[in-house]
Amino acid sequence: MTPSTTSDRRAPDQSPFISLTTDFGSFYSGICVGVLARLAPAARVLVVTADLPRFAVTAGAVQLRAALPYLPVGIHLGIVDPGVGTDRLPIAIRCARGDVLIGPDNGLLVPAAQVLGGVYEARALAAPDLRLPNPAPTFHGRDIFAPAAAYLADGVPLSRFGPSITPVELDRPRVEHDTSKPGAVRAVVLFVDAFGNLVLGAEPADLAAAPGSRLLVQGHAATRTDTFAAVAPGGYAVLVDSSGWLAVAVNRGDAARELGLGPGDPVLIEVGSPA
Amino acid sequence: MTPSTTSDRRAPDQSPFISLTTDFGSFYSGICVGVLARLAPAARVLVVTADLPRFAVTAGAVQLRAALPYLPVGIHLGIVDPGVGTDRLPIAIRCARGDVLIGPDNGLLVPAAQVLGGVYEARALAAPDLRLPNPAPTFHGRDIFAPAAAYLADGVPLSRFGPSITPVELDRPRVEHDTSKPGAVRAVVLFVDAFGNLVLGAEPADLAAAPGSRLLVQGHAATRTDTFAAVAPGGYAVLVDSSGWLAVAVNRGDAARELGLGPGDPVLIEVGSPA
Amino acid sequence: MTPSTTSDRRAPDQSPFISLTTDFGSFYSGICVGVLARLAPAARVLVVTADLPRFAVTAGAVQLRAALPYLPVGIHLGIVDPGVGTDRLPIAIRCARGDVLIGPDNGLLVPAAQVLGGVYEARALAAPDLRLPNPAPTFHGRDIFAPAAAYLADGVPLSRFGPSITPVELDRPRVEHDTSKPGAVRAVVLFVDAFGNLVLGAEPADLAAAPGSRLLVQGHAATRTDTFAAVAPGGYAVLVDSSGWLAVAVNRGDAARELGLGPGDPVLIEVGSPA
Repeated sequence: MTPSTTSDRRAPDQSPFISLTTDFGSFYSGICVGVLARLAPAARVLVVTADLPRFAVTAGAVQLRAALPYLPVGIHLGIVDPGVGTDRLPIAIRCARGDVLIGPDNGLLVPAAQVLGGVYEARALAAPDLRLPNPAPTFHGRDIFAPAAAYLADGVPLSRFGPSITPVELDRPRVEHDTSKPGAVRAVVLFVDAFGNLVLGAEPADLAAAPGSRLLVQGHAATRTDTFAAVAPGGYAVLVDSSGWLAVAVNRGDAARELGLGPGDPVLIEVGSPA
Repeated sequence: MTPSTTSDRRAPDQSPFISLTTDFGSFYSGICVGVLARLAPAARVLVVTADLPRFAVTAGAVQLRAALPYLPVGIHLGIVDPGVGTDRLPIAIRCARGDVLIGPDNGLLVPAAQVLGGVYEARALAAPDLRLPNPAPTFHGRDIFAPAAAYLADGVPLSRFGPSITPVELDRPRVEHDTSKPGAVRAVVLFVDAFGNLVLGAEPADLAAAPGSRLLVQGHAATRTDTFAAVAPGGYAVLVDSSGWLAVAVNRGDAARELGLGPGDPVLIEVGSPA
Repeated sequence: MTPSTTSDRRAPDQSPFISLTTDFGSFYSGICVGVLARLAPAARVLVVTADLPRFAVTAGAVQLRAALPYLPVGIHLGIVDPGVGTDRLPIAIRCARGDVLIGPDNGLLVPAAQVLGGVYEARALAAPDLRLPNPAPTFHGRDIFAPAAAYLADGVPLSRFGPSITPVELDRPRVEHDTSKPGAVRAVVLFVDAFGNLVLGAEPADLAAAPGSRLLVQGHAATRTDTFAAVAPGGYAVLVDSSGWLAVAVNRGDAARELGLGPGDPVLIEVGSPA
């Protein structure tokens, strides 16, 4: 796949678009947007979230992949970076759709790149003149990543930033099928959304259960549904999340709190009713 | 009342204005803003909050009504939608001031519409070509409501979206007067603000107590004041909130936490000092 | 120092820039941005954060000082205002860099003004025609501060707002050296960041310990490092925060939670290994 020629060039009346998706919290994210406003005053900037789960690269990769296809073609900062200041590289990836993803080379960006058409070009961000002076080893978001986004938005070519690299990839989450229990699957929690819904590393096809089927989630009676409100308030639903993964929800409740589960935890889903 | 002709047409140099007030959390809200940025790149977009209390339609209605009069005339998404994907309708309401409110037909939008001059026209959002393809039953914000706002901002007339409807209305919160105790009122907590202040479903006229009067709030000594700092740090104040409702605050403290109260809970306010 | 003539005048093609840094939470902050959007529709607006620690003037002053040098020259609202509605003044400070800071006269703004070149002019915000009508005594952000920012952005001169004043100053945080223990310092927590890192009122020179040195933080073994990941996951690091202060961090953990400390608490750092 090659990037379309139209997505590489903007119409003369359109501002470049920059997004930020990080685990920084609002304050550090706000400072990064300040750097963008100073270095790329003409860009449109969207903070998708500053509240990705802290340090959780896999969860961040899943959320970035879920969000970016809904955004305009642009420059997208994705930062969950527990190794900031160590020898992990700061990188930029041009995708076939025309977007450029910027962040640490720890696997965070690659699933999003794949859903945006695939990796077309990847570079280390090495040029010292395209950073703030004396970057702090604890805040590459402000001193390396945001300036890179601003300079790219301003027309600096990606090849100016540093040498070609091959980005690190994450293992794809996968379910385990429990051979002793027909239809049972064990999946991992990818992330917990604002409603406490558990988004799982499992796709609809992984669970052989038509809508309406009775299930057990960690031993609790649940129903395979399409909507949250298809079960009674307080009841467990297993449904397809808006990003296409299977999810566990409690109607008008908080599944993560009720089950005591968070990112990385395994969840057992069985087919059938309680004994 | 009729919308002014000036508010229906924008000056040629002014971008349309779109706001979002939801219980989505920052991530899902950010995705909706991404959809707006893609479909309505010229619009100015403001996220009022993504942290309305989850599933709490009455609290959301009160907060939307408090916020919107301070915003420019525009298109306002208001979404607290525990029934997403069920048979509750997605709707849009044009108000007499010229604004259009977009969200679920569960009563959330009507109090705001009333304070913006009243409901002038209301439509179901039914046209399949004015949504994203294959809307997810769990995320109408992204797939139905945000696209509707973008298309309206782009000039699509409201009548194109679907048939006229009469929006569902909520019961207005009201106080109970305790006949056994002169001046005592029982009000409900509408919402808790970022400082832990309890905003009540009671208006200043509901409580016959001049500023400076001694009160009891749930049995705790309190003072009717104009400001938080008119009582000592840690003291209880009953005052008029910035949205015009009565509120209970603890100076430099957190009334919600100290009283263990939240949206929907009743609060007893008595006139007079502790025995 | 005098403001440069270039920073006082904008190029004709550049919008004024307004930032907000408050303890309001997203909802009240969003309403203030709504007021800006209505009164200064051409301004670019950035919410740095709405989640400064509530009521904590010193912490807010430190965070404002850390953020503003990274933002464009502009009008900056800084609001942590437990005395709202009392006789503390609402003020505006023009700094030598050309920025104008707006907020309460409780010391919050002065450290930021100093880092932006120093206080060049300070005025009380007294003019009743440059506020919203009938300002609520509980929400000067919406009714006094945001309108002032909008009118300034629109070109109203600062001298129109009210009389000259000399802003209140805060005591600068300083460390105590423990004379009984060579090299030991006691510093105060200025603020806790989104990762639970404790940013201290101590500068690198206050602690005589080269990177790699063994330390004790509240009795826990720690290492003086440059990066979070230079210690094992769960280990304590003492490093220079991105704002230039010393900070205590737990690699991939939450130092504030593990040590049970927050803004204003003292922290003892000793040089050497556990006995």
